[in-house]
Amino acid sequence: MSEGSEVRDEAAHREKMARIKAAKDRLYASKTKEKGLLIVHTGTGKGKSTAAWGLAMRCLGHGLKLGVVQFVKGRREPGERKFLERFPELVTIKVMGEGFTWETQDRERDIAAARAAFEEAKRMMQAPELHMVILDELNIVLRYDYLPLDEVLEALATKRPDLHVVVTGRNAKPELIEAADLVTEMRLVKHPFREGVKGQLGVEF
Amino acid sequence: MSEGSEVRDEAAHREKMARIKAAKDRLYASKTKEKGLLIVHTGTGKGKSTAAWGLAMRCLGHGLKLGVVQFVKGRREPGERKFLERFPELVTIKVMGEGFTWETQDRERDIAAARAAFEEAKRMMQAPELHMVILDELNIVLRYDYLPLDEVLEALATKRPDLHVVVTGRNAKPELIEAADLVTEMRLVKHPFREGVKGQLGVEF
Repeated sequence: MSEGSEVRDEAAHREKMARIKAAKDRLYASKTKEKGLLIVHTGTGKGKSTAAWGLAMRCLGHGLKLGVVQFVKGRREPGERKFLERFPELVTIKVMGEGFTWETQDRERDIAAARAAFEEAKRMMQAPELHMVILDELNIVLRYDYLPLDEVLEALATKRPDLHVVVTGRNAKPELIEAADLVTEMRLVKHPFREGVKGQLGVEF
Repeated sequence: MSEGSEVRDEAAHREKMARIKAAKDRLYASKTKEKGLLIVHTGTGKGKSTAAWGLAMRCLGHGLKLGVVQFVKGRREPGERKFLERFPELVTIKVMGEGFTWETQDRERDIAAARAAFEEAKRMMQAPELHMVILDELNIVLRYDYLPLDEVLEALATKRPDLHVVVTGRNAKPELIEAADLVTEMRLVKHPFREGVKGQLGVEF
């Protein structure tokens, strides 16, 4: 490339970046409302709960308090829970007592466990000190009809207005998506399970 | 519902759950390989970096060490960085020195900053003590051609074999997706920006 074309190239780049910056500045300036958000992470891909733990980390970094209800207890001791339990002054965590469905094989017991967890979630959603409440895998519970959808929607609609609530799990109900402010679908593009690779420490759990 | 139909309902549920459990048990038993994964979070939705911080939390929960290179430094002090910096014995973190592109308006300086950050990333990808390396927003750097794609792919292909590497950012290059083990696309379903709500503490940063 000749020196002249490099100079033109640089100038074109600077001009383009200046346009982008101006557009971004205008965009951010127009966003002024604060609001407690209802955030939903759904889809069949990875990262739904994981992104909720990332939000938790963000809150903890700012010294903000959170509540966590895990509606599904897996087979393994997850790193995120071990970690969150180290901050009892900032994190209130409630784990639904038993495994889930295909583990417990007992619908009545699962419904009772879901109910107990949800009652705790409702308390958290009114607690004045919390910045965020994460309802991990609530979508699974709703999908199995272990909690009445109307009651859950009502509790979300009447949450403390400035509280952020994050709901995770595949197959989010359309009514929940309708009620939400921010919805992300995690879409599976490629998964190592297909090649016989197992779920690994620090990645899957 | 009569008592008889409730009993049949329960039996049908138990049978279904037993089938699911058996299928899950078979599936997990067939997955035996351990492998350092190349994980990519891309797409235009939220949660790409956030899910990487969730993976970081998972590692920290298990006491595993990580390396983090942030290729884009935003306007604000992000909670996740404030937080990760509290664990210097577990987390090595490198932030690309300047803002980025539309902030700096200086292509040459951005390229030099990307190069310095990438050299650090290459060192991390060989470090024997790390369980995971997060290359946050590397896709953006590749998209602007601030680093040669071939060199990046080569560094990823020759990483320590049992190391997990997470690459985030929209517009992941097809060659990177091809090379990856686990790829998730975060798809925007609904965003509160549309209603004039601004990026908020503990959610957006």
